Amino acid sequence: MLSSEIQKVIQVLSKMPGLGQRSARRMVLHLLKHQEKYLDPLVFSLIKMKETIKVCSVCYTYDTENLCVICSDSQRDKKTICVVQDVADLWALERTGWVKGGYHVLGGVLSALDGVTPEDLHVPQLLERVQRERVQEVILALNATLEGQTTAHYLCSLLKDVKVTALAHGVPLGGELDYMDEGTLTTALSTRRPLYPS
Amino acid sequence: MLSSEIQKVIQVLSKMPGLGQRSARRMVLHLLKHQEKYLDPLVFSLIKMKETIKVCSVCYTYDTENLCVICSDSQRDKKTICVVQDVADLWALERTGWVKGGYHVLGGVLSALDGVTPEDLHVPQLLERVQRERVQEVILALNATLEGQTTAHYLCSLLKDVKVTALAHGVPLGGELDYMDEGTLTTALSTRRPLYPS
Repeated sequence: MLSSEIQKVIQVLSKMPGLGQRSARRMVLHLLKHQEKYLDPLVFSLIKMKETIKVCSVCYTYDTENLCVICSDSQRDKKTICVVQDVADLWALERTGWVKGGYHVLGGVLSALDGVTPEDLHVPQLLERVQRERVQEVILALNATLEGQTTAHYLCSLLKDVKVTALAHGVPLGGELDYMDEGTLTTALSTRRPLYPS
Repeated sequence: MLSSEIQKVIQVLSKMPGLGQRSARRMVLHLLKHQEKYLDPLVFSLIKMKETIKVCSVCYTYDTENLCVICSDSQRDKKTICVVQDVADLWALERTGWVKGGYHVLGGVLSALDGVTPEDLHVPQLLERVQRERVQEVILALNATLEGQTTAHYLCSLLKDVKVTALAHGVPLGGELDYMDEGTLTTALSTRRPLYPS
């Protein structure tokens, strides 16, 4: 009883991360019910995004220019590069406002299981960039997963004549010890910080 | 650091039911990363849906024709109409395969709070249809919420010379009594069914 035009939209939407058949169906009905308010703006903005968004030729994030706002910002410290897996991680770090330098989006992490090799990532471009821009510190801001940490170690082995750092591991703010896994607690204990005498 | 073109898509998507800022961001990145696989088909199918989908002039569901596949199906029993709040409910009931008759989508339920009056729903059309098609049974398949049940009672008071039934209330299949509210348990007890002697 679902016409194929509706089914096609549901099928595409249900492939999105975090969406399934049910939520895709709800979304389609919402769009059909509010065509002027939601469907038209969605179609328009998707087309606009598709037409204008490019990948930055230096750090590989998304922007409307070939050189993104971060890379073209002369106020930012070009001597520090924060290496991230995906653009989502760049956005998350950028929301902290802490990073004063640039970024480098790898576009994934090494994974033997998924057949992701260094050539599939922007690793050669990173090495070349570190040389060219005379970078002084590379901050590896990769996920604390097996693949993320493997990639971090691999990058560390390639990066010479530059300071390489990684995000600290430990109990997240607001985290309750009772809910933490043993690995996190062990790491938090072994890398404990001195409080007194300071 | 988010370009306005990306932000616009995120803003529209985050208004969808069940989606928030975070899931909208994930979805946009997924679309940008897989343009050919997802973004293009999504835009294409949304435009196609917008162009072709109409509202059935009899039961008010969505279809490509003015008379939907259910209403135009001569195999279906025209003497029974199942009244639902939204198209989503029609789809849910249709998946059971139990309903042999037609449907009537109200397009909402009465709500003093939201200012929804009978004129905002397809109530006059229902009454007219029951008369015209000489319907013998109207099944009120409305949500078991306050608004749904108020609407059911209101419709029941308007429908004359026709059998009016409503969905049974009780413990859902697989439901554990421990997790049921008192209202459901009270209803299930007072409308208990005889097992023996049958």
